[in-house]
Amino acid sequence: MSKKIVIIGGGPGGYIAGIRAAGLGAAVTVVEKENLGGTCLNWGCIPSKIMKNSAEIFLKCMGAAAYGIDIDGSIRPDMKGIMAKKETILESQRKGIASLLQSRGITVERGTGKISGPGTVQVTANDGTGKTVEYDKLIIAAGTRPMNVDDFPFDGKKILSSNDILTMDQIPESLTIVGGGVIGCEFASIFSALGTKVTVVEAMSRLLPLPSVDASVSKLLLREMKKRKIKVFCDTVVTACDTSGQGTTISLALSPFTDNVKAKPPKSDTITSQQMAVCIGRTPLSGDLGLETIGLETRGPGWIDVDDGMRTRLDNVFAIGDILGPSRVMLAHVASHEGLVAAENAMGFESKMAYNAVPGAIFTMPEIGTVGLSEGEAVAKGMDVKTATTNFRVLGKAQAVGEIAGEAKMIVEKGSEKVLGVHMIGPHATDLISEATLAVEKGLTAGEIAHTIHAHPTLAEIMGEVASKAVGIPLHG
Amino acid sequence: MSKKIVIIGGGPGGYIAGIRAAGLGAAVTVVEKENLGGTCLNWGCIPSKIMKNSAEIFLKCMGAAAYGIDIDGSIRPDMKGIMAKKETILESQRKGIASLLQSRGITVERGTGKISGPGTVQVTANDGTGKTVEYDKLIIAAGTRPMNVDDFPFDGKKILSSNDILTMDQIPESLTIVGGGVIGCEFASIFSALGTKVTVVEAMSRLLPLPSVDASVSKLLLREMKKRKIKVFCDTVVTACDTSGQGTTISLALSPFTDNVKAKPPKSDTITSQQMAVCIGRTPLSGDLGLETIGLETRGPGWIDVDDGMRTRLDNVFAIGDILGPSRVMLAHVASHEGLVAAENAMGFESKMAYNAVPGAIFTMPEIGTVGLSEGEAVAKGMDVKTATTNFRVLGKAQAVGEIAGEAKMIVEKGSEKVLGVHMIGPHATDLISEATLAVEKGLTAGEIAHTIHAHPTLAEIMGEVASKAVGIPLHG
Repeated sequence: MSKKIVIIGGGPGGYIAGIRAAGLGAAVTVVEKENLGGTCLNWGCIPSKIMKNSAEIFLKCMGAAAYGIDIDGSIRPDMKGIMAKKETILESQRKGIASLLQSRGITVERGTGKISGPGTVQVTANDGTGKTVEYDKLIIAAGTRPMNVDDFPFDGKKILSSNDILTMDQIPESLTIVGGGVIGCEFASIFSALGTKVTVVEAMSRLLPLPSVDASVSKLLLREMKKRKIKVFCDTVVTACDTSGQGTTISLALSPFTDNVKAKPPKSDTITSQQMAVCIGRTPLSGDLGLETIGLETRGPGWIDVDDGMRTRLDNVFAIGDILGPSRVMLAHVASHEGLVAAENAMGFESKMAYNAVPGAIFTMPEIGTVGLSEGEAVAKGMDVKTATTNFRVLGKAQAVGEIAGEAKMIVEKGSEKVLGVHMIGPHATDLISEATLAVEKGLTAGEIAHTIHAHPTLAEIMGEVASKAVGIPLHG
Repeated sequence: MSKKIVIIGGGPGGYIAGIRAAGLGAAVTVVEKENLGGTCLNWGCIPSKIMKNSAEIFLKCMGAAAYGIDIDGSIRPDMKGIMAKKETILESQRKGIASLLQSRGITVERGTGKISGPGTVQVTANDGTGKTVEYDKLIIAAGTRPMNVDDFPFDGKKILSSNDILTMDQIPESLTIVGGGVIGCEFASIFSALGTKVTVVEAMSRLLPLPSVDASVSKLLLREMKKRKIKVFCDTVVTACDTSGQGTTISLALSPFTDNVKAKPPKSDTITSQQMAVCIGRTPLSGDLGLETIGLETRGPGWIDVDDGMRTRLDNVFAIGDILGPSRVMLAHVASHEGLVAAENAMGFESKMAYNAVPGAIFTMPEIGTVGLSEGEAVAKGMDVKTATTNFRVLGKAQAVGEIAGEAKMIVEKGSEKVLGVHMIGPHATDLISEATLAVEKGLTAGEIAHTIHAHPTLAEIMGEVASKAVGIPLHG
């Protein structure tokens, strides 16, 4: 008899866990209440990248004349057209995952999964019919939803969640985004490109106030966002929201949360815009999982704790992905790797999840790629480090394609010369971080990267340039 | 007294050698008869990438409607505008190199450099004035020019060299490209995108008939070129060219050079097009260097032989870059690294050039990135290998941006599991090959790449996918 593995949640963590477990001989059931692909495919990474792609095409068209491409007429983004494209791509990808799972012999149960006791999950379909599936091992990958603010809850019209943004049918004339984290900054880039007047309000002292993003990246992003006419209020919180008029008017105040001791009150007391989006975080979907039936407790708003083998306190129950909360890393590719680890351990292997070389990809304009320690993190750990920074503008390819804004910073441990981290903002940064990730993962030195030949003319030369600078042989930068 | 180093040629090999030597304390003179930057900046990599960028913008505009960007009017590429943009970028980069060299204390002598005896180079400026510069060590980086065919020599009007193409002022209605190598295929992609009817004639059995490009890449490129309505004749040579009429009419015949024993005569005897471009190779610029005054002989048409320290037969004379000929690798980034090695050795160090992990970047549509052994090369060496291939279409990011054509192939040594080579064609392949290059350079295994987390949703996931497949854990592909 095959080992029975049930996975609650068909997002990237869940279905990759299923593929791995099935590859190891398990009888796998994935329970998914909405569409396969989870937040990533349906409400996150993918639809926002489709919107970004349209926004970039619009910018390309608007700037085409400078490159010898003459457009005789008007150029106009159409949100209905963008959304139609988005839906076509998403539907194709959902089908792709379904057929992938089918080809690996995985059963997909459509419905809400709730643990009904040790070894059983009750699945309730949308039509109300139910069935019970049994498990030897359970993997919880139920994910999160956008976090609401009680004082001004999502209404889907003037106060939008990130989900609401992804079903818009018009481009707003103006948009205030509360939260200058990854989601807020990505949408700020997209909407400003599409012609919306965008304002970002962030409670901390900088955009992307994550330890895993080097402060230099935030600084350059702020500069580029200002160039794109995005207004940014850091050190600022929203104290009230009035939607009674034509648009939304929010009241601003000095943030009590900011890490900036010199922070001053915002220059404006209020901002009025057509719509506002609240992107301040996500909250776990663990409340209705029936965890109490197996005696599994959660932390805070419902995060689930696991060890590095993705095991909960219970030997036969694993958890992966965003439901672990921000003490792990809430990213799709982390969930996928956690899924591999959970599946292997569920099948009797001994795998461990490591978080030291997790790349971050942020799809702002320009893009951001990070891996390993930021300078601030390394210093906070008391490490003796040196850094080198190279601008993308020194690269011939960046000049040739007209994408010169950006820089890469390499953080190197003195003595060992190991690359501790690379934090870059610039064209293709989300792809380019892969080489740096391999270097951090394998403990390579800056010299080893500098010695490696980088093809010309490519944007990947940034890694050769910054590594050469780090070892004292600056070339173009 | 600083050691006097003279470098003939201000291309990427020459000026990087100068920067490195100056960094090590040398008094450096770079002699350049045309513009700084060499073939790469002025007649090769960079201007062709600028043209490609315009061609891609044109394609984006033409396809914008499908992405929700409505253009109400006509879209037209204008070669004069493209060339103007090109010239602006090139001029800025030439100035950039000049100021870079100045900032490193390097003297640039504008003129033709000719060795006048051991230790001296005569520099003749364009105005005829001359001066003599003395060297302790000489680095020859004089490069190449496009190869002419005696039977139908370049005329700059109907029979074009790659240089002529880069100064065109109109987009031809039709163009025949003789030579399906890197340059020919890059221009075929550019012109077909701009609306030209393109035909490619290649004497060997496949496009890009280089041992360093895996045959699978050539096959997929051929498929994509056909999709773009490019006509391709392999196993075919041009026997005559008639430019007496309106356009150019060339006569075709079965190639005597092809490696395809089953090759059949071409389906057409002749092709008529408005213009033709001859891109069949390059020839060394060593004839006027005065090599005979120091007793340095050349090989074949004028290639210079060196050891792995870039030293010629003479202890104080080095050579780098394209003038070494195709037995080395004729690429800008190889020249740059050879420049570093030559400079270090000229300054008394012991550096060696290695060619086992040289990435190749080919800017066709889609792009191509290669590194290390192709499957054919590995098999020819008698190695026991396995391969894995993954299509770009399995990546969410490729779907989101609508660039799904392409694949990556990984060649792995059985037993050691080391990655011997990666050959890919697809979006951003020229950047993505950098991670593979680091893996080949450091002798990493497929498992080490599979274990490394790749950010989602990025095109760099192709490396994680293909490596996972190579180790027997296929995920999406």
